[in-house]
Amino acid sequence: MAPVEIDRYAELLVRVGVNLEAGQELFVDAFVEHAPLARAVARAGYAAGAKRVDVHYDDKYVNAALVELASSEEIERGASWLIGRAGEIEKRGGALISIAGDPAPRLLDDVDPERVAIPRARDLTAERIRVALGDKVRWTIAAYPTEGWAERMLGSPDVERLWDAIATCVLLDEDDPSRAWREHLARLDARTEALNELALDAVRFHGAGTDLVVGLLPQSLWRYGSHSIEGRPFVANMPTEEVFVTPDRARADGVVRSTRPLPLNGTVVEGLEVRFREGKIVGVDAGKAADVVRKQVAIDEGAARLGEVALVDAGSRVGQTGLTFFNTLFDENAACHIAYGQSAGAVSDEVGELDAGAQTKLGVNQSSVHTDFMIGGPEIDVDGITADGSVVPLLRENVWQLS
Amino acid sequence: MAPVEIDRYAELLVRVGVNLEAGQELFVDAFVEHAPLARAVARAGYAAGAKRVDVHYDDKYVNAALVELASSEEIERGASWLIGRAGEIEKRGGALISIAGDPAPRLLDDVDPERVAIPRARDLTAERIRVALGDKVRWTIAAYPTEGWAERMLGSPDVERLWDAIATCVLLDEDDPSRAWREHLARLDARTEALNELALDAVRFHGAGTDLVVGLLPQSLWRYGSHSIEGRPFVANMPTEEVFVTPDRARADGVVRSTRPLPLNGTVVEGLEVRFREGKIVGVDAGKAADVVRKQVAIDEGAARLGEVALVDAGSRVGQTGLTFFNTLFDENAACHIAYGQSAGAVSDEVGELDAGAQTKLGVNQSSVHTDFMIGGPEIDVDGITADGSVVPLLRENVWQLS
Repeated sequence: MAPVEIDRYAELLVRVGVNLEAGQELFVDAFVEHAPLARAVARAGYAAGAKRVDVHYDDKYVNAALVELASSEEIERGASWLIGRAGEIEKRGGALISIAGDPAPRLLDDVDPERVAIPRARDLTAERIRVALGDKVRWTIAAYPTEGWAERMLGSPDVERLWDAIATCVLLDEDDPSRAWREHLARLDARTEALNELALDAVRFHGAGTDLVVGLLPQSLWRYGSHSIEGRPFVANMPTEEVFVTPDRARADGVVRSTRPLPLNGTVVEGLEVRFREGKIVGVDAGKAADVVRKQVAIDEGAARLGEVALVDAGSRVGQTGLTFFNTLFDENAACHIAYGQSAGAVSDEVGELDAGAQTKLGVNQSSVHTDFMIGGPEIDVDGITADGSVVPLLRENVWQLS
Repeated sequence: MAPVEIDRYAELLVRVGVNLEAGQELFVDAFVEHAPLARAVARAGYAAGAKRVDVHYDDKYVNAALVELASSEEIERGASWLIGRAGEIEKRGGALISIAGDPAPRLLDDVDPERVAIPRARDLTAERIRVALGDKVRWTIAAYPTEGWAERMLGSPDVERLWDAIATCVLLDEDDPSRAWREHLARLDARTEALNELALDAVRFHGAGTDLVVGLLPQSLWRYGSHSIEGRPFVANMPTEEVFVTPDRARADGVVRSTRPLPLNGTVVEGLEVRFREGKIVGVDAGKAADVVRKQVAIDEGAARLGEVALVDAGSRVGQTGLTFFNTLFDENAACHIAYGQSAGAVSDEVGELDAGAQTKLGVNQSSVHTDFMIGGPEIDVDGITADGSVVPLLRENVWQLS
């Protein structure tokens, strides 16, 4: 894309995404291939008053060599200096922009699946989840198009076409993207208000091989992509189309089929089917790479229980592109989904401030992983169920049924 | 260059450069633009038995934004997570390969020279010097050609021509580069033996506006690029053509002119002239960017005193290319040079093992900086002076005069 577009995008991530405060430090996580955007973000950060911009580059090829050639202990071990950096983002009151966009999605296809399934850098992943997903700092994830991603998604390394799709999804095709984002977030805000007024006891997904009921807690609170720390809002995902809630970790029963490929550990899980009993995953099958999921849900006690239920309707710009992005940031905003592992924090503020042990006791799941997978689509009906057992249709053929 | 050449080069850096032990961790420092070599080094590392390969990428453009737009405090502050990583290389008994090759040598040309002159990341630089230059770990610096560097050096982004020059300098044009390196190092070994037998009291450089006498210590020991830790050798610089010695920090008198441009802090100092009295720099002039040197020699007490004297003759492959590389790794191996700041460690082993305070008392300089600049050339005569005052010619018209 043209430099002027990169600059507009970088400014959007800094001003709307993490909503940077003057004098704050800005941290950026990126792959080497994302350097043009990371550099634009650095300059946009200083323009917005950043005290400092700190960029860390990851390298998929170096990671792949580790997975292929190192011991499992080394694959599981996060570098302590990177764990230190993740903690420092919180300590220094920083903001975090993570750039997504796999530069080489097929790189691990020929590596021993046993090795690919080994959990990566466990302590580091846990610390990153604690800091970002735990809303210890203002953070956002956004994507940068790479040739490898475009090749995987479109069948050719057409970065320009992928860029156009991304730009549409993040409202960069609007004259005033910041204003468009304010209006978009207001719509999602109204949707969560309507859901919270219903005080649902459970959500049911059914159709096309799926029949799953997930229980909610009295303290569950529907939220959307606009988070807030000390009264200052930020947008954790760009794009964001979902409304989501933290379920009861003890109540999920039935079977659910993934409706999109799931990129995980650098590979892609296809044809995923998961069975739940009393909140816990009791069976995992897949046409490809089932073991990657099986190993991940065995990492800790909370990994096999749900941390998120999210609803997306046909109004989604991501869904409207008609594309499968092979990237959770996009695909989770194209369709309804659930996540096993760490709670997405969609509970009342009082509960959110409790420590992990107290949250677990109340039924709010805790884990060192958090993996979303898509379960929605036009053939899946979604209902709310209230405490008295009445059924409230939420989605039919992907069309929103409330208000 | 062709992938096969990158792989041969990476193998040379791993096997001859840091001489990696099986089971050791390998750390790599690189710029984003060096990713192809960093990736090849990662695979060569595992092939040589590395337990893990850890790559950190720096970004000249992000650094330039910091220099241009952040406060001087932030420019001077090293990120604590990078300081932690530098220390960890020692703690984990790792080896370090640093990849040089400025991707954008002119990037700071339009930035306020006052800002460019601010010392960068002081604590980080000091820790890196302590760990690597202090031979706490086996380390090597080698170069990767970038378009920006080729443009600066050759006037066009001819990366292939720059690669050919690098390959010649590091003996990759030999059938068996490892063997060629063994023979090359044996020649430098014989040269240092001859110098050490002379037990010189001082070295004198004179000609073309330079007249400088630098005193040596009784414990000064001429060394060359092959270092050794626990009996296992490594080559700290590739290429390496110099023989060098740590001088007496209290004895340097006269004036010296730099014979090549000096790249420093991302800019280039030209026409440098430095005056010494009783070991200390008492005057710095330059046609361009003198302030960058002035500020650096004021950083700490040792910055204005010498830590290294090095001799290079006309047999140097680097010199034979006839090119100015605008890169110290190469240019210091094309001509005689001196360095202000930290001792290069070319003292007897007993003295090398003393702490910094004890070394300073003996006359071995300590500093958080170490900057080489070229002072040799065909018009500069170099003499050794023994304790009884007799003069031993060392170089005439760049031709070695001993044995």
